[in-house]
Amino acid sequence: MTDQNSPALRVALAYHQAWTGRNLDEAMAYVADDVVCDAPAGRIEGADAYRALMEPFVQMLISAETVAAFGDEEQAIVVYDTTTTLVSSGPAAECVTVRDGRIAYSRFIFDRLPFQLARSTAS
Amino acid sequence: MTDQNSPALRVALAYHQAWTGRNLDEAMAYVADDVVCDAPAGRIEGADAYRALMEPFVQMLISAETVAAFGDEEQAIVVYDTTTTLVSSGPAAECVTVRDGRIAYSRFIFDRLPFQLARSTAS
Repeated sequence: MTDQNSPALRVALAYHQAWTGRNLDEAMAYVADDVVCDAPAGRIEGADAYRALMEPFVQMLISAETVAAFGDEEQAIVVYDTTTTLVSSGPAAECVTVRDGRIAYSRFIFDRLPFQLARSTAS
Repeated sequence: MTDQNSPALRVALAYHQAWTGRNLDEAMAYVADDVVCDAPAGRIEGADAYRALMEPFVQMLISAETVAAFGDEEQAIVVYDTTTTLVSSGPAAECVTVRDGRIAYSRFIFDRLPFQLARSTAS
């Protein structure tokens, strides 16, 4: 599950541990300046926009649990579940491509629906 | 990416190729009778309920493209993107646990929101 022989997985897990530990500065050290992220709401380009995506999520994060993690030389997948102030279970998958020790591309998959429903109930 | 030394990945990919080829009978041969699937809408138990979840999706499937796939002895993850008659890009991740050559547990992650929006626009 956590094959430390995968350079991409090492980076993906270091990133994951940093942001789920609510240390976004440390997490961003593993993200390339010109990162491209295909997220549910659309494509995000550049580290600043990526950080702006993550920041509100990290602020409402209560806990995260890794479900599975695999990788090879260039690519890694981390599947995890999150508990936030908004939604009790929000599973997600991040499938990343790593170049020069940083995440250059990420495909980020999660269900936006429970978050949207929780927000519309709250408002 | 497609490490054929992983028994779980072999099953996950055979299942994936069958259902994305719209052969649900063949796909279900890789799914345990007592399968448990944690899907976005909640837990599904048993092969009949699982098939009922997949059937309408397979019916509207136009194409599927594998993004990444990894596995080990027991667990595998397949990340893919789908084009359906409803949504042009619906990426998903299936993280499965395989026992006795069949999928015993699946955590199925995708964004329901574009499907819901497309349905409410259509109706």
